[in-house]
Amino acid sequence: MESRIRVTVWNEYIDELTKPLAAECYPEGIHKYFEGFLSAAGYDVRTATLCMPEHGLTPEILESTDVLIWFGHVRHHEVSDTTISQIHRRVLDGMGLILLHSSHASKLMRKLLGTGCMLKFREDDQGEILWVVDPRHPIAEGVPEHIMIPHEEMYGEYFDIPKPDELVFIGWFAGGEVFRSGCCFHRGMGRIFYFQPGHEEYPVYHLEPIQRILINAVKWAAPSPNICKYVQMFHEPLVGRDKIHYEIPEMPDPETMRKLREGML
Amino acid sequence: MESRIRVTVWNEYIDELTKPLAAECYPEGIHKYFEGFLSAAGYDVRTATLCMPEHGLTPEILESTDVLIWFGHVRHHEVSDTTISQIHRRVLDGMGLILLHSSHASKLMRKLLGTGCMLKFREDDQGEILWVVDPRHPIAEGVPEHIMIPHEEMYGEYFDIPKPDELVFIGWFAGGEVFRSGCCFHRGMGRIFYFQPGHEEYPVYHLEPIQRILINAVKWAAPSPNICKYVQMFHEPLVGRDKIHYEIPEMPDPETMRKLREGML
Amino acid sequence: MESRIRVTVWNEYIDELTKPLAAECYPEGIHKYFEGFLSAAGYDVRTATLCMPEHGLTPEILESTDVLIWFGHVRHHEVSDTTISQIHRRVLDGMGLILLHSSHASKLMRKLLGTGCMLKFREDDQGEILWVVDPRHPIAEGVPEHIMIPHEEMYGEYFDIPKPDELVFIGWFAGGEVFRSGCCFHRGMGRIFYFQPGHEEYPVYHLEPIQRILINAVKWAAPSPNICKYVQMFHEPLVGRDKIHYEIPEMPDPETMRKLREGML
Amino acid sequence: MESRIRVTVWNEYIDELTKPLAAECYPEGIHKYFEGFLSAAGYDVRTATLCMPEHGLTPEILESTDVLIWFGHVRHHEVSDTTISQIHRRVLDGMGLILLHSSHASKLMRKLLGTGCMLKFREDDQGEILWVVDPRHPIAEGVPEHIMIPHEEMYGEYFDIPKPDELVFIGWFAGGEVFRSGCCFHRGMGRIFYFQPGHEEYPVYHLEPIQRILINAVKWAAPSPNICKYVQMFHEPLVGRDKIHYEIPEMPDPETMRKLREGML
Repeated sequence: MESRIRVTVWNEYIDELTKPLAAECYPEGIHKYFEGFLSAAGYDVRTATLCMPEHGLTPEILESTDVLIWFGHVRHHEVSDTTISQIHRRVLDGMGLILLHSSHASKLMRKLLGTGCMLKFREDDQGEILWVVDPRHPIAEGVPEHIMIPHEEMYGEYFDIPKPDELVFIGWFAGGEVFRSGCCFHRGMGRIFYFQPGHEEYPVYHLEPIQRILINAVKWAAPSPNICKYVQMFHEPLVGRDKIHYEIPEMPDPETMRKLREGML
Repeated sequence: MESRIRVTVWNEYIDELTKPLAAECYPEGIHKYFEGFLSAAGYDVRTATLCMPEHGLTPEILESTDVLIWFGHVRHHEVSDTTISQIHRRVLDGMGLILLHSSHASKLMRKLLGTGCMLKFREDDQGEILWVVDPRHPIAEGVPEHIMIPHEEMYGEYFDIPKPDELVFIGWFAGGEVFRSGCCFHRGMGRIFYFQPGHEEYPVYHLEPIQRILINAVKWAAPSPNICKYVQMFHEPLVGRDKIHYEIPEMPDPETMRKLREGML
Repeated sequence: MESRIRVTVWNEYIDELTKPLAAECYPEGIHKYFEGFLSAAGYDVRTATLCMPEHGLTPEILESTDVLIWFGHVRHHEVSDTTISQIHRRVLDGMGLILLHSSHASKLMRKLLGTGCMLKFREDDQGEILWVVDPRHPIAEGVPEHIMIPHEEMYGEYFDIPKPDELVFIGWFAGGEVFRSGCCFHRGMGRIFYFQPGHEEYPVYHLEPIQRILINAVKWAAPSPNICKYVQMFHEPLVGRDKIHYEIPEMPDPETMRKLREGML
Repeated sequence: MESRIRVTVWNEYIDELTKPLAAECYPEGIHKYFEGFLSAAGYDVRTATLCMPEHGLTPEILESTDVLIWFGHVRHHEVSDTTISQIHRRVLDGMGLILLHSSHASKLMRKLLGTGCMLKFREDDQGEILWVVDPRHPIAEGVPEHIMIPHEEMYGEYFDIPKPDELVFIGWFAGGEVFRSGCCFHRGMGRIFYFQPGHEEYPVYHLEPIQRILINAVKWAAPSPNICKYVQMFHEPLVGRDKIHYEIPEMPDPETMRKLREGML
């Protein structure tokens, strides 16, 4: 039996306690809402928030997390550098990471990507249309070619990120802007997906196709057991191994070659 | 039950009938050798060769192929343009394609990539070391960080291809050359993998890690059933749909929003 | 003195003769309009059209062209395969190519990129906003972060192209669509720029920032004299050169090394 | 008159003072050797070293530097975080950066790229052959298709970097390894080139084609005056500008359109 993907959903969890509209959309917090639909999709889900000790992300939790989902907003600076470093290390070692909405300004995204990750934004009550530009991508599987989001905060270009390794979605905003709304990055053994939709005052994550994208993204970002073993190899001490040169073995003799042909490797 | 991936292995099948060393390595032809280890890996495998009517690749065969493996060598020009066009169309529609070794000079690869795909080469009896440069890639899963190939034809840079969407392997040759030996390309809904090792006079495909790469590549290149349905959407006539503008729906009323929150989508 | 970049502007030149609005925008044809502002920018410009013998693109013309600009529309199929092959060859050898607007459906673009290059479209009289998403790119130099195009034909995603090597512009359309409007591709020694704006019935190419983009694109796509000589090397016959292995020279003796230090290479 | 590109060469400058072979290769330090051939190439060159106050890189120096060249080796940790942050900021604002050899392990490269940047290495006295795999790239202009480096420290894959935006060189090592030896990255408005050759105990930078690469890289990485002005725009406060929506102007009236046609923009 294949083991289930272990997801940890991290949420700043301030807005839902302080802003009426956010509380209305996510009465128990965005993290709990995610726990609901991701559990229903068959994932093994835990949650963590800013105010928990170590932000709810102890080394043990991180070690047993396949994919971390991150929703930060206005208190990015309150996340400790120690926790950020530990997450960063885990991503390079293969843990998947999904960065949501205003997490573009998090220490975590900046540390992983190296740029400022700034963008234009405007809070208004207009809509967004999300377009698929890489329909063959696993994160777009089963997703309609465009998704109507009735209300969304505007995020606009220029978005100061490295060139995405894969660009899956582009957002259209009623006010006249466009945005690279769904971007994949590969860093070390880890896969990272930045996804723009999700202003906390609108029920964006309630939309079924948005959930479909997130469910796909978890599956895409999860490390495979084989890859984990493989990564191990890269961590072994290099001493010794690199002292010798690689020697190409001799051509097998005819008998060996015959056996090779018979599949007797 | 998940249905098995349907693979068609196409082989020029001239060398094995005319060159003693090739015959020794692959007595029944490279296509049959592939059928062996790919069937053992759980795939549903058929074979086809240059000399069969329509080169063994009728529209019906192509339509029921998930991944096509292509080994061409010196008779690229004898493959009919009609067949090439049909394969090209199928790849854009989502069929996976694995191009082996000297297939770099095939009409098929050139038509899909648009460049000349030329390279340096030298037939000698020296070795190659194949290095993984994208260990997180699905095609590298379970593959050792380097593979010793005792004897291989040299293929060297400059290799006239578009920048690969993903570069998975780089080859080292004893004569002093390097080569981008494992390259992924995405074209339309299709995934393409070019793989350099496999000179027909050496038993390269007998090597277990080489088989592992090919088994992985088939899995990576295969279209998912969902994606197939999705592609359909892109083929629907555009008339009508594009006559109207996309209208963003109204903000849901409070009652609807409450229901949304309760998951009553 | 640096020699001037030699540009050939090719235009189908049917619309301007048959459609009143096109004739009003470009009374002498789009090619002549381009000749005007590109000559003013310091380029050496010639024009050619579909109806000229060999479509105005003889081998001699092509050979003396640094950058070819292409505006095709509804008669793509009337361009001879011979001419297409000759242009294709020249691009791989280093000639720059700028493909405008409806040239996405040209034989030329399809042959160079390998995909169908289809897209959504809708003729209406609404506007486009063109956004820079790679402000550091030479083609975006001096271009404002967004350009208002009062009226433009809608082109929408999914746009069936290979992943652009560089994505410079994304278009926003009033009807709700987005489009990868400025895409760079590298093929062989040639640089290719696809640029979406330019429906012939609106004076899009009259807009100053659009002209700035095109002037930049010519400069970006032009081959340098050094590169041309370099390409020559790749065309030399491989016979002989590849028969020998590359031998790494000995470590220089101390005296040689001293001379090396003194710059006496 | 075009102003000259201002280069600052930073060198750790410990090896040349402590290791006889390094001293023999670069009696005045690697930075001074670079100053020599880069000045001869027409650049305006200054140098700085680890032991200088603020490591020789005051904000004023950085502000007046177009391209920074960085040679760090074993004392990466002694570079202050303040200086690293200031350089990082300058690169995002458009300063070019060339990272040499063992600088892969510098705080600077890791902060800009986000990964560990580790690799295999082995000090031996064998050779490297450097191959061009992107001959059209400006950094490869005038560079032969391969360069023999008689002696070089081995650097081998897996090299833990993000996928390079452009891969220009691949290194072949006599011991059996390959390496992505010349990699371009774009971060913010800055261009970054990592270049592997240059072990301090061999006179690698004395080789003419290696100098050609470095001279090209400076030119490639330098910001253009226009781009600098452009960047300014992205730094302007967003307040206000984003409060309003982008309004597409009206279709020009016939008279305006006529004027447009006459170039009277």
